[in-house]
Amino acid sequence: MVTDALSITFGALADPTRRAILARLAEGQASVTELAEPFAISLPAVSKHLKVLESAGLISRGRAAQWRPCRLAPEPLKGATAWLQRYRQFWDESLDRLADHLRELRQKDKST
Amino acid sequence: MVTDALSITFGALADPTRRAILARLAEGQASVTELAEPFAISLPAVSKHLKVLESAGLISRGRAAQWRPCRLAPEPLKGATAWLQRYRQFWDESLDRLADHLRELRQKDKST
Repeated sequence: MVTDALSITFGALADPTRRAILARLAEGQASVTELAEPFAISLPAVSKHLKVLESAGLISRGRAAQWRPCRLAPEPLKGATAWLQRYRQFWDESLDRLADHLRELRQKDKST
Repeated sequence: MVTDALSITFGALADPTRRAILARLAEGQASVTELAEPFAISLPAVSKHLKVLESAGLISRGRAAQWRPCRLAPEPLKGATAWLQRYRQFWDESLDRLADHLRELRQKDKST
């Protein structure tokens, strides 16, 4: 059982429906019914995804008994991005290598 | 069963041992034995993690039969970062709000 914050965040993001829910909430708060609308899945299935997102701290929910709007809670995404940033150099380097290669090809082209 | 690339990437990252393996490979290629050393887990357990990372395209492995060094393959991390970048504004905004708040406090302080 994995329990560290970063693993919980990445685990919560490892599902297209949960990512779509976060994308919807990025536009503003929404009720469970509103969140369920675009998906071809049942309300209980959506509720299950919301529980995963809520325990990962990625959404928060209002207190009103009937209307409990969900809101995006972006803090854990910051930690996930910080982890990924350390690897940025690796794909930047491969872009640099590609650019160098293209430059060399162009110079060869000019010299012929 | 979740099969889209982004879910597979996030799923592979949702484990501290797998993230530690990627961090080790960021320093250079390594054999399975070298990768297993810092962890209190068996070689087969490490091999299992490597299989997850390999099928997620996060590592590649050499061809030599005995010595099959693992290498970091950073491409999928780029996709994961791109997804997370869209949410950057949300935590930037909360920092902006904090800065505004501090500025207001300071101005009040001056005017008294």
